[in-house]
Amino acid sequence: MIGIFDSGLGGLTVVREILNRLPNYKIIYFGDTARTPYGTKSAETVTRYAIENTKFLINKGAKIIIVACHTVSSVSMPTLKSLFPEIPFFEVVTPSFKKALSLTKNKKIGLIGTRTTVESGIYNLLFSQADPQIKLYSNPSPLLVPLIEEGWIKKPETRKIVKKYLIPLKMKGIDTLILGCTHYPLIKKIIQEKAGKRIKLVDPSQEVAIEVKEFIEKNPEIKQDLKYNEGIEIYVSDITPNFKKIAQIFLNKKIELIKVNLD
Amino acid sequence: MIGIFDSGLGGLTVVREILNRLPNYKIIYFGDTARTPYGTKSAETVTRYAIENTKFLINKGAKIIIVACHTVSSVSMPTLKSLFPEIPFFEVVTPSFKKALSLTKNKKIGLIGTRTTVESGIYNLLFSQADPQIKLYSNPSPLLVPLIEEGWIKKPETRKIVKKYLIPLKMKGIDTLILGCTHYPLIKKIIQEKAGKRIKLVDPSQEVAIEVKEFIEKNPEIKQDLKYNEGIEIYVSDITPNFKKIAQIFLNKKIELIKVNLD
Repeated sequence: MIGIFDSGLGGLTVVREILNRLPNYKIIYFGDTARTPYGTKSAETVTRYAIENTKFLINKGAKIIIVACHTVSSVSMPTLKSLFPEIPFFEVVTPSFKKALSLTKNKKIGLIGTRTTVESGIYNLLFSQADPQIKLYSNPSPLLVPLIEEGWIKKPETRKIVKKYLIPLKMKGIDTLILGCTHYPLIKKIIQEKAGKRIKLVDPSQEVAIEVKEFIEKNPEIKQDLKYNEGIEIYVSDITPNFKKIAQIFLNKKIELIKVNLD
Repeated sequence: MIGIFDSGLGGLTVVREILNRLPNYKIIYFGDTARTPYGTKSAETVTRYAIENTKFLINKGAKIIIVACHTVSSVSMPTLKSLFPEIPFFEVVTPSFKKALSLTKNKKIGLIGTRTTVESGIYNLLFSQADPQIKLYSNPSPLLVPLIEEGWIKKPETRKIVKKYLIPLKMKGIDTLILGCTHYPLIKKIIQEKAGKRIKLVDPSQEVAIEVKEFIEKNPEIKQDLKYNEGIEIYVSDITPNFKKIAQIFLNKKIELIKVNLD
């Protein structure tokens, strides 16, 4: 079973990409909707939540875990890996870093994400280790998550706020933009429009799905463990009306939500 | 000691009004910043959090409790009152309902608030019991909390979104508008500007503070219990950079935050 968790809705962009590439595996998803959002909270609190989410997925039978949340991917991975050494973890920062590195021509890369993700400095660290000539320009964009969770994915106000967040990055002449939050692919069209055609977008949900698929195909024993067992179970810590509506539109299928209390 | 809690920052508008009217009492504040916001979550989850917050304040010595959160005031009061019968509770819905009732001339009242507050139907119930001729028009305005928590209290995007939320209420010809969320007094100027001069605003933070002051003055034994003991202790479940900054500007004094884990 492939376990996937996120603070809320955003990780469903990863679920969709996994379903596209690995349609025969069973997925168990946990969205921490009772404590969402994570990106405005401290690294310590986010890591505490991430540990609880991981334990829940392991107890439900997950053999590999995808951290479909940039904030957790940015600040909690060393802790998760040391607490659960038996679990192969995938996160969304490394594959999007690699993709951006392969796409950029002028070595000017932009990053939008939550405040905690941007301030963690993880992308700066990765790029400076890989190629010191790369310049990373980042802008925390914390209002995009509430706008998306609210379903304002086509509203003019959302376009205006996206534009505002992108202006300082465009002024730096970036040619590549990392969508540093798994919610953002839900408004990819608006972001591409406001960024302009010359800027290439890196979609972390696609990149992590590619990485997971490669990993499973190279590891027959894991493949065996995961078994072929179609279907998806979606657990949430709170049932909110918006979640179900947006999730169904997004995954393009009827879904059932199961509520669990982690705290 | 007067205990006050909110999902985050909004309840500080109540703290300010209490400090203005009862400067000699000790206040203990709890902001559930690790699980904020409440207004997008279900009544069940909000009530679970409210119980934990109340227990925390009682353990710290609170003798009366002000629920400085509309979402909790709308959905959790019967549970809180039955679980803690010894505690006098004050909430923000009833005093703002009373104020609106006394202000309206044309009996058309508007309400903005979080989705959970508006959908609880509590204001509809109160007005229909008090005067069946009153028409209440409400519009959930869930993006205002993240905009305020983000500190965008003077930005043009915030003005635009406020305007958008108020248009349907203005079209109904309301003469009174309830700010149904303790965050909203932080952008009262913008709301007044977009509502227009003819609409009177009801500020729940002021109304609850007036009610608490009257209660204390009428109950000498409670007054004795609360003692004269200046000062404020602010507890939060997560220390976020924005909270401290905005809280200090807002209360106009240096504050220390103390972190506690409730879950």
